[in-house]
Parts: sequence; structure tokens; C-alpha cells
Amino acid sequence: MRFLAFEADGRKGLAVAMEGGAYHGLTEADTAWPGDLETLIAGGFPASAIAALRSGRAVDPAMVTVALPVRRPGKILCVGLNYAAHAQESGHEIPKVPTVFGRFATGLIASGAGLVRPRVSDLLDYEAELAVVIGKAGRDIAKEHALEHVAGYTIFNDGSVRDWQLATPQWTVGKNFDGTGALGPVLVTPDELPPGASGLHLQLRLNGQVLQDTKTDDLIFGVADLIAFLSTAMTLEPGDIIATGTPSGVGGARKPQVWMKPGDVCEVEIEGIGILSNPVVQQE
Amino acid sequence: MRFLAFEADGRKGLAVAMEGGAYHGLTEADTAWPGDLETLIAGGFPASAIAALRSGRAVDPAMVTVALPVRRPGKILCVGLNYAAHAQESGHEIPKVPTVFGRFATGLIASGAGLVRPRVSDLLDYEAELAVVIGKAGRDIAKEHALEHVAGYTIFNDGSVRDWQLATPQWTVGKNFDGTGALGPVLVTPDELPPGASGLHLQLRLNGQVLQDTKTDDLIFGVADLIAFLSTAMTLEPGDIIATGTPSGVGGARKPQVWMKPGDVCEVEIEGIGILSNPVVQQE
Repeated sequence: MRFLAFEADGRKGLAVAMEGGAYHGLTEADTAWPGDLETLIAGGFPASAIAALRSGRAVDPAMVTVALPVRRPGKILCVGLNYAAHAQESGHEIPKVPTVFGRFATGLIASGAGLVRPRVSDLLDYEAELAVVIGKAGRDIAKEHALEHVAGYTIFNDGSVRDWQLATPQWTVGKNFDGTGALGPVLVTPDELPPGASGLHLQLRLNGQVLQDTKTDDLIFGVADLIAFLSTAMTLEPGDIIATGTPSGVGGARKPQVWMKPGDVCEVEIEGIGILSNPVVQQE
Repeated sequence: MRFLAFEADGRKGLAVAMEGGAYHGLTEADTAWPGDLETLIAGGFPASAIAALRSGRAVDPAMVTVALPVRRPGKILCVGLNYAAHAQESGHEIPKVPTVFGRFATGLIASGAGLVRPRVSDLLDYEAELAVVIGKAGRDIAKEHALEHVAGYTIFNDGSVRDWQLATPQWTVGKNFDGTGALGPVLVTPDELPPGASGLHLQLRLNGQVLQDTKTDDLIFGVADLIAFLSTAMTLEPGDIIATGTPSGVGGARKPQVWMKPGDVCEVEIEGIGILSNPVVQQE
């Protein structure tokens, strides 16, 4: 299944793709409203909720304001240096253990919203990533059961203010500017994709120019590895996001360097999921 | 004002200290229940809510299960290396910019709950810290107005699984084990403390032995500095936590090293706030 969260007239809306690809759905103003996508994720996508959405009106994704698939994730766990060529371009060794940093919901924006270049830096960089949304809570999850905990997959652009990121040993602040973490546009359930969303073509385009281009089976630590590793430490909960890391080609490592600037359009496409597209705007 | 969140019969409770220090309060079963502490923080501590709590029954902190002052903070922003002597003992330079890492709510425990030594490591360390709870939301907050955004202060024990923390360039995973972040027991509003909670005696005791001992005016970046710095990047929201960093004396830097083990009791005391006390237990 493919879900599209949206907003209409200030209300939450949710649509599901029908056979053939057209979306049908409801808003919270409808009596049949089954709850938002977070509710469906936590409930394991109840059949009654899906049926309600399918019985709703047609929703044209181009005509609605796309919303975040998960508005307030409890955790956003971002994996760094998880493609060998990107670890090398960043001056790091190929990691033996996943390198993880945290992002928070205040930095997230939906597809279509402005990626914000802040007043304090012009060094706004992009990072195309496959993102995992957790469905079933768990701790100490064995790798062979890890994929059972996935609600679905989406796309993340891990926008990074590079000078702030690299000003201290920990990357957190430069990774958490408001309006720099784009997530979406849709949530695709695992049955529509290869196991662990492996082997998918992933591409980032800035104003149409291809700047990152890889396949997700080049991940050093795959989705099942990451779930097993992270859950050794912490309970994963429904709606938690794991951003699996970006491939080589980030702007700060290019020669000459490429920084996103107002007026640019940054797109991340993952085969079988969709296109996350955001214009770049300046912080007012 | 001093607030104590608690649980009784599976219900949320909240008490406020009266003149003389005794607590009075209510639970959500009471018709006068004014909402939980998060609600009061977001509302700026409405006088009607305080009056309702004061009219409630006596609450003996020793006879209730203490709860987290904020159960699900949107952000837990932890400052590392913020006391000069601790930066040195950790092999780092004295920072010119705050070093920040993120923790998530799944790792938090209240005062009295077990600090959990995980199965995968015996290197569970303590870190005594002053914690700030944000009251009024803001972005790009000027330092001279920063303290207006503080709802109150509490105590944090930034429990760290050192080998997991230091296994990669980013500390996140070793800082986010379930049951390792102790927060509380009370929230003390700024009017009861010096500006920015500066100059308070802070001490950590493990089984009664003093292992960390400092004053909060030894912070390299004080509370107002941190709020101004962090809000340059991100919107701070009611209930967000800033853990201001730990002084020297952590277990991993001692000779011989000291690690917490099941049966230990770890206490953090901050003058004018209280004592955060947790037994150490083993992950089952």
C-alpha cells in the first residue's frame, strides 16, 4: 500500500493508492475518518481503516498540500557514513559500527515545503536517503525478525548546515536547523518493495542535475542490520524514523563545492517510492 | 514554585510545594485536576491551576511513585564538554562552540526508578547535570531574553554506556540506552533560584561516595548562552530539555575506573533543587 498524508482547509487528510495508482481518501472532517497515518501505523493498518479510505473521494496529490507521513516522530535516528564512497569523501574510515546522530521533529518539512537556508550560514547541503518508518515496537530485535518491525519506507533529505555541523565533535546542531529535514511524500509498505528496500535506485537532483546516484544495496549496514543494532540499545516505537545514510556526491565534498541557494529545487527520487521535491528558500 | 509529578493507582498526579515545603496536589481522577505538568508548562503556570493543586490533599514524596517532570520531551539537547576539567579528562580541547548530542524520551527514567546496566556492556557511567526545561517557545532568541524562555530547572543523570558511546564518531547510541537517563525529581521555577541557576552546588554520589562536585557557575556556556545558541538553529518548544553538561569526575576517566553495577545507588544533588536518586539494576 501507498499512503499520502495531506492537509486540506487546515484539516488532516489521508489517502491510499488504489489499483491503477489514483489516490482516494478522507479528511478528519469526514465521519468515516479512520485516524491519521500515525494511528494506522500504530494499529498495524487495520483493514477497516483501509476500506474507509478507499471509499473516500479521489485525491490528486498535485492539488493538495502534502503533509509529513509522521508529524512528530519520537525518534529520528540518522545513520552517517553508511555508503563506502561517502565515508571516503567525508574523510572517514569505512565504519565497522553504525555511526548515528539524532534529529528532532522541529526540523522536519513535508514534500513541497521550503528547504530553509538559514541567516547564519550559506553552507546548506543536501543528503538523499532511504528512510524507514517503524511499525511494531521492539527492543533487542533479532536481525532475522527485524523487517517485521517496519511499517514502511519513505524518502529523507537530510539537509545539513555544514559549518555548524562540523564546528564541534558532534554534528547535532548543524543537522537540526528548522526547515532542513525533508521527509516524504508517501509511505510505501514493505510488501510493495524488495526485502529491506534493498536494490532500489536512489538519485538526488538539484535543478535537474544529478548529484547523487546509487542503489540502496550499496548500504554498508542494511535496514535489518540497523534495526537489530539500534534496538540493542533502545526501544524502537511506532513512528520512529531510521534515516539510513547518504551516498557520495554531497555538495560539500564536490570540487567545486555546491551549496543549495534560494530558488533551487532539490529532488530525491527512490525507485518504487516516489519523488521528494522541495524548493530552497531563505530564512526571513 | 516546586512541582512534583507522580503516579498513584496508575493515574497521573501533580503536586506543588506549599510554604514550609509540604506538597499538596491532585490526580487526574479529581474533578479539579488542572492537567499534567507539561500542560502547566505550556500554559505558563496558570494561577487557577496552581490554586487547584494547593487546594488538593497532602502528598508525601516518599510515599508516591515519582514520575518524570516531562514524560515525552520533544527534544533532549545534551551539551558535552561544558566544564573545563571534564573536557580535559575526556581528552578534548576546551570548546569554543557548544558540543551537542541528542537523547530521546525512550531512555528516560524518573527518580527512584532503576538505572539499567544493559546486557551488552558493563561500562555504565554516570554524569551529573543541571537540566533546563523550556517554557516559552522561541527561535533566534537573544541572550538577554533567553532566561524568559525557561519554565524551570531539574536534575539529569546522563547515564552513558561508554564503550558504545565511543565506538563511533557520534555518541548517540551509547547515550540512548533504555533506562539510562534519569530526570527529576522536581521542577523548580526560576524565581526560586539565582538567574540561570548559576552558582549552585552540584554533587554526584555513588553509594554515598562523592565522585563529582562542582558549582554550576563553572559551566563554560551558561543557560542563557545555550538557549541563544540552540535557538539560532532550531525552535525550542515547551517541555524541551537542555542538559547543560557534566563536570569532571566521571567513572570512565577515574583511575581506577568506576562503573555502576547492580545494587549501587546513584544520587545527584543540586543545591536549591533536590536529590535525584536511582538504584542500579541489571537488564533482564
